[in-house]
Amino acid sequence: MSRASGVPVPTIKFYLREGLLPAGELTSPNQAHYGEAHLRRLHLIRALTDIGGLPLASVGKVVEAVEDHERPVHQLLGAAARTVDLALPDPVDSDGAVRVQARAMADELIARRGWEVKPGHPAVEALTAAMASVLSVGHGDYLDYLDEFAAAGERIAAADLAFVARRQRPEDLVERVVVATVLGDAVLAALRRLAQVDASARRYPPQAPESSSDSSSG
Amino acid sequence: MSRASGVPVPTIKFYLREGLLPAGELTSPNQAHYGEAHLRRLHLIRALTDIGGLPLASVGKVVEAVEDHERPVHQLLGAAARTVDLALPDPVDSDGAVRVQARAMADELIARRGWEVKPGHPAVEALTAAMASVLSVGHGDYLDYLDEFAAAGERIAAADLAFVARRQRPEDLVERVVVATVLGDAVLAALRRLAQVDASARRYPPQAPESSSDSSSG
Repeated sequence: MSRASGVPVPTIKFYLREGLLPAGELTSPNQAHYGEAHLRRLHLIRALTDIGGLPLASVGKVVEAVEDHERPVHQLLGAAARTVDLALPDPVDSDGAVRVQARAMADELIARRGWEVKPGHPAVEALTAAMASVLSVGHGDYLDYLDEFAAAGERIAAADLAFVARRQRPEDLVERVVVATVLGDAVLAALRRLAQVDASARRYPPQAPESSSDSSSG
Repeated sequence: MSRASGVPVPTIKFYLREGLLPAGELTSPNQAHYGEAHLRRLHLIRALTDIGGLPLASVGKVVEAVEDHERPVHQLLGAAARTVDLALPDPVDSDGAVRVQARAMADELIARRGWEVKPGHPAVEALTAAMASVLSVGHGDYLDYLDEFAAAGERIAAADLAFVARRQRPEDLVERVVVATVLGDAVLAALRRLAQVDASARRYPPQAPESSSDSSSG
């Protein structure tokens, strides 16, 4: 399994001890067989820790949700969401007035988009914190584009949900929610960066005639 | 300054020693005055470390770029982009074949969208790594939505560039690039999560008549 995954043996043994990986099928007293499902689980654990930056305790909760096939869909989705919300950035310090302003903007946006979200949802806190940071660094006009970003977010979320709903086996649900949030964040960040590089190359061509002054009109 | 920002005094002194914050104007041998610009810089440093997760060495490079008003625009953008690219997730281990497949998909996507991106760009590596993870966990059909995500990324990037170009002072350029990438990632992650919560609440209503079985049709 170490050879197939590139994950060192001691790390795999650690995951087994922590109960993150199920035990293999014993083929002899010293030898266990690990199949395709083990390998996928191992990749899921690595993706959650390396790409999602989740602490091991949260990975444990995701794995627990993945293995619980009895819970109804909305509870599974809730459990997965609460866990992946840990991947949202920590709120940074911002003074009270800025935070109140950011919170009001977040609430107005949610009302404007007609989004069904409970008031105390971690994503509302994360949005408030991120917007408070934008206001604090003195570039609040970035938030003029908030509805544009929200519309893009809706388009992405529709694709995410279609992906989750297309699952073939019920037990794939939580795994797919995790893929669509944690790995999806990484895919989207890279795609957005590439689209920015392209837009920037077109607006500010590298071989501008002047080489020492700002030749853009802005 | 500590009171206005909520950042502890020892932390501020540390930033001053590291050259991340410029020294204040001495008003007496023991007292220095810090103005609006200092406070904004302090918020920028906190945003880069707390929200962007950048190591201090990278924050130093961003600050250096912010203070260098002589470099041409495309060089400044390049410097800012190289630094904020550090905020992209680390590539995870994936076996050679999966990585080759992910890389081919990334190259095809870039060609299909007509994006002007140099082959070795860090964002291409980040996209390849994220897609390789999706393939490794056995949910490669998430990548069926890649063009949908790319289109959303283009819409976001257009708004990002419009924001950067709207700057009032030339020295704001790098700061605005950083806001539009690092803080923008945080804003977008939260918005996407909210849009997902909304889409999920509509598709899988919490008060389903059955309470112990998967009642969704998927």
